[in-house]
Amino acid sequence: MTILKALLDQRRAFAARGLKLNMTRGVPCKEQLELSTPMLHITDTSSRGIDCRNYGQLEGLPEAREFFAGYLNSVYEETVVGGNSSLSLMHDVIAHARLRGVPGDTDEIWRKQCVFLCLGPGYDRHFTICESLGINMLPVRMTADGPDMDQVRSFVQNKSVVGMWLTYPYHNPTGITYSDETLRALISMKTANGGFRIFLDKAYAVHDLTERRARLLDVRAESLKCGTQDRVFQFCSTSKITWAGAGVCAMSASPTNVAWFQRWLFAQTIGPDKLNQLRHVRFLKNMEGVYGLMAEHRKILRPKFDTVDKVLRTCIGQTDIASWTTPEGGYFISLEVEQGCAKRVVELASGVGVELTKAGATHPYGRDFEDKYVRLAPTYPSLIELDDASEVIANSVHIASIEKRENRRVVP
Amino acid sequence: MTILKALLDQRRAFAARGLKLNMTRGVPCKEQLELSTPMLHITDTSSRGIDCRNYGQLEGLPEAREFFAGYLNSVYEETVVGGNSSLSLMHDVIAHARLRGVPGDTDEIWRKQCVFLCLGPGYDRHFTICESLGINMLPVRMTADGPDMDQVRSFVQNKSVVGMWLTYPYHNPTGITYSDETLRALISMKTANGGFRIFLDKAYAVHDLTERRARLLDVRAESLKCGTQDRVFQFCSTSKITWAGAGVCAMSASPTNVAWFQRWLFAQTIGPDKLNQLRHVRFLKNMEGVYGLMAEHRKILRPKFDTVDKVLRTCIGQTDIASWTTPEGGYFISLEVEQGCAKRVVELASGVGVELTKAGATHPYGRDFEDKYVRLAPTYPSLIELDDASEVIANSVHIASIEKRENRRVVP
Repeated sequence: MTILKALLDQRRAFAARGLKLNMTRGVPCKEQLELSTPMLHITDTSSRGIDCRNYGQLEGLPEAREFFAGYLNSVYEETVVGGNSSLSLMHDVIAHARLRGVPGDTDEIWRKQCVFLCLGPGYDRHFTICESLGINMLPVRMTADGPDMDQVRSFVQNKSVVGMWLTYPYHNPTGITYSDETLRALISMKTANGGFRIFLDKAYAVHDLTERRARLLDVRAESLKCGTQDRVFQFCSTSKITWAGAGVCAMSASPTNVAWFQRWLFAQTIGPDKLNQLRHVRFLKNMEGVYGLMAEHRKILRPKFDTVDKVLRTCIGQTDIASWTTPEGGYFISLEVEQGCAKRVVELASGVGVELTKAGATHPYGRDFEDKYVRLAPTYPSLIELDDASEVIANSVHIASIEKRENRRVVP
Repeated sequence: MTILKALLDQRRAFAARGLKLNMTRGVPCKEQLELSTPMLHITDTSSRGIDCRNYGQLEGLPEAREFFAGYLNSVYEETVVGGNSSLSLMHDVIAHARLRGVPGDTDEIWRKQCVFLCLGPGYDRHFTICESLGINMLPVRMTADGPDMDQVRSFVQNKSVVGMWLTYPYHNPTGITYSDETLRALISMKTANGGFRIFLDKAYAVHDLTERRARLLDVRAESLKCGTQDRVFQFCSTSKITWAGAGVCAMSASPTNVAWFQRWLFAQTIGPDKLNQLRHVRFLKNMEGVYGLMAEHRKILRPKFDTVDKVLRTCIGQTDIASWTTPEGGYFISLEVEQGCAKRVVELASGVGVELTKAGATHPYGRDFEDKYVRLAPTYPSLIELDDASEVIANSVHIASIEKRENRRVVP
């Protein structure tokens, strides 16, 4: 009983301090945003004879298309550069598919009852797009190498399975990078529906937390080799490179897919904000410029991830009530607690002023059936705040697990 | 025959000069874009404690929502500020309606076979949205006061009629401003479908070509008075105030409509580019700031419209083969030629290097059954170019009309 008393005393001490910390979302901190301050002073308006202030360039500024073709390991013609949100681009591709169907989907399943494969845990905003557009979600197990391919291979035998979400590298929220073998299997596998599409979110392509750069499979080359070049849409943005709210997004897809999307895009806009695209290209210059900037981000972020890990190790490292990832990239730590405890952990932490991502948010329909995943987003708070927050989390995990064992609430 | 010979001699002279002029689209000229150069140097990133570089503010930056509430004659809560394209906002509202239906449309007609009322002549990009989203278009006659209300009242007795496009003030391309009476009738009329929506494009709300400001009906107040507050969506952008490619757009709609749209918006994005919204608000400041800037635009544009009018008057003003508008605002002159001659005029002008908007583009499905409307866009070319272009247009109108009378081609 002394452990519980100590935990409750600690909890009372937290409460007395009136903490107000937010770890809900993968949001860059102020210091990260400051890294791109020079971009504010770029006043170029012209690129290769194109006045970026005027209408036009539906698929993006040529300079920007070149830049993002490099970023996405693609080619100019297959790269489209958009506004400030890759989520919008993903959403719009899928909305377009729902309204108009996609090439290869002979039975037009995309326009009817259709299904996406969704990794759990995964990114809640991907799931929101599916829900919003009336697409059913089928959870897929996660292995150390990525999606469980036995499950996936079996699911795609069904024509109603039209899509799948992936985050590559550094899966959100577990931080793992799918193995080449798994990715190759996803690219080459037979699918019942010729309109099956993979939505590959490269949100963290250059967001390494160690000196080692993520070595990525050349998805486009691999798809061409397998004759499945229409299968994968790749997406990225500079939201976590320059500015989360004022960045630039891009996508890469086969000529067939790009031509298909252009028809929608033509109805939707006269063209993207090329001035912001130009600012970005002039500021980032090339991939070495990007990696240079990401090294500065790493200097800010690495200590934050280390702090959470250190505090959790100190407080609950010796127990078997929780485990967590030590990601080599991305924006999240995935905390795995005892079955049936995740919701309670989030609730307990909130009770003393530490807001965490809603338990379940990492799963399709917000339903984590085992109730054991908690996503931690350490990028926004300061180191001192993270120290406090991590202690609160450890304390909450501990209390929740005692409550589970004793089958009673020890905190009202 | 001497007139024809003179016209053909003149045409040969044009051809010899190798003109290359483009009057196809309502695009601002370089001098207009330069007016907003100070905006390039605005480096503010923060607004009332909101870091505009970061995520958030789904409905737009509060400062920007206030600004556009003023612009649209609406209120803060009913105003949503977006990215660089009001066309996108219109498109997305309608795509959303197609996928999800709208409040009040009890039979869910929006999701099935549905119809929009479209003024001919009208704005081709409005029509493109309908075509792209599989919405049928029913042409409505234009009177001097706006849409022919007898036709409209009769059409909206049909439940399948779910929407209508309007450009107010300064209708594209005729430049007329609908009368208060007509607009009131549109707002108050009974419609069979409770989900009937009017898409009011205020693209030229402050784009006066004379000293007299367009006096606009308070659409929101009028709708509230009639109990039809869910009927009208209002849209605008700064594309023709600051920069056509890098501006900011906004919409105003009833609380019911805004809440309905927010659900889609939440799935589509984490938030708009608030940095560009902040730049705009700081640069334009308020409505007086906007009108001050528009006076500078007018200094550039007015002589261009006058030049076209003057040349046309000199060349074909004494004939009855054409008439054209002298708009008090907006971006276009609408040229009306003899029945069956519009396509030929565009073709003849193109033959000597003057590109005009495709004949028919001003009508739903690109079909001007009378083949008599030609849209002239005088904003982009220089005064000297406009002088040449207008002579070519007059010459082409003249030749086309002779060809019609003689029922033979005089130019191969």
